[in-house]
Amino acid sequence: MGNLFADLPGQLPQELFEVLAQSAGTRLERIVSSGHATPPGEWYDQDTNEWVVLLRGAAVLRFEDEPQPRRLAPGDWLDIPAHRRHRVEWTAQGEPTIWLALHY
Amino acid sequence: MGNLFADLPGQLPQELFEVLAQSAGTRLERIVSSGHATPPGEWYDQDTNEWVVLLRGAAVLRFEDEPQPRRLAPGDWLDIPAHRRHRVEWTAQGEPTIWLALHY
Repeated sequence: MGNLFADLPGQLPQELFEVLAQSAGTRLERIVSSGHATPPGEWYDQDTNEWVVLLRGAAVLRFEDEPQPRRLAPGDWLDIPAHRRHRVEWTAQGEPTIWLALHY
Repeated sequence: MGNLFADLPGQLPQELFEVLAQSAGTRLERIVSSGHATPPGEWYDQDTNEWVVLLRGAAVLRFEDEPQPRRLAPGDWLDIPAHRRHRVEWTAQGEPTIWLALHY
């Protein structure tokens, strides 16, 4: 048991990844960002599907196959098929951005 | 794409279940309750594990093997092993209670 909005470190030099549930072919993670972004020129290109929701904070996500980035607000979710290349362009600074990501 | 806190019906005669992501052995659902509870004397007894989080509203969950029920606030999550019998004793009235449940 736990709370998704608790246990937030005061300092976050790197994004924080925590596995909440796992079984064969499934992994659920909480991710906490604070001003972090995918390094310039890099893309996520994943072997599994990812369903992801932003629960607190704000972010800008970009897909390689879309001209415009997407701004995400709390509650916004996306279902990203395996190998659809994407990157996090921006996350809010000065407050934690909390994601829940299901790799399936 | 969607938003977990949007598309909430004004009237909810029954709990609302929506599948958000699914693959072999994995099902992710949004559940919206509004004063609903598990019928008296009934227990959930599931063949799969369930990771569940309450995101909005409030609820009281009870496990058959625990003397005290648990009150859930936004962000509270539990990982419920298959066949651990549980029931929802109460959900808030007059506001939607929004859950995300992963059956895995």
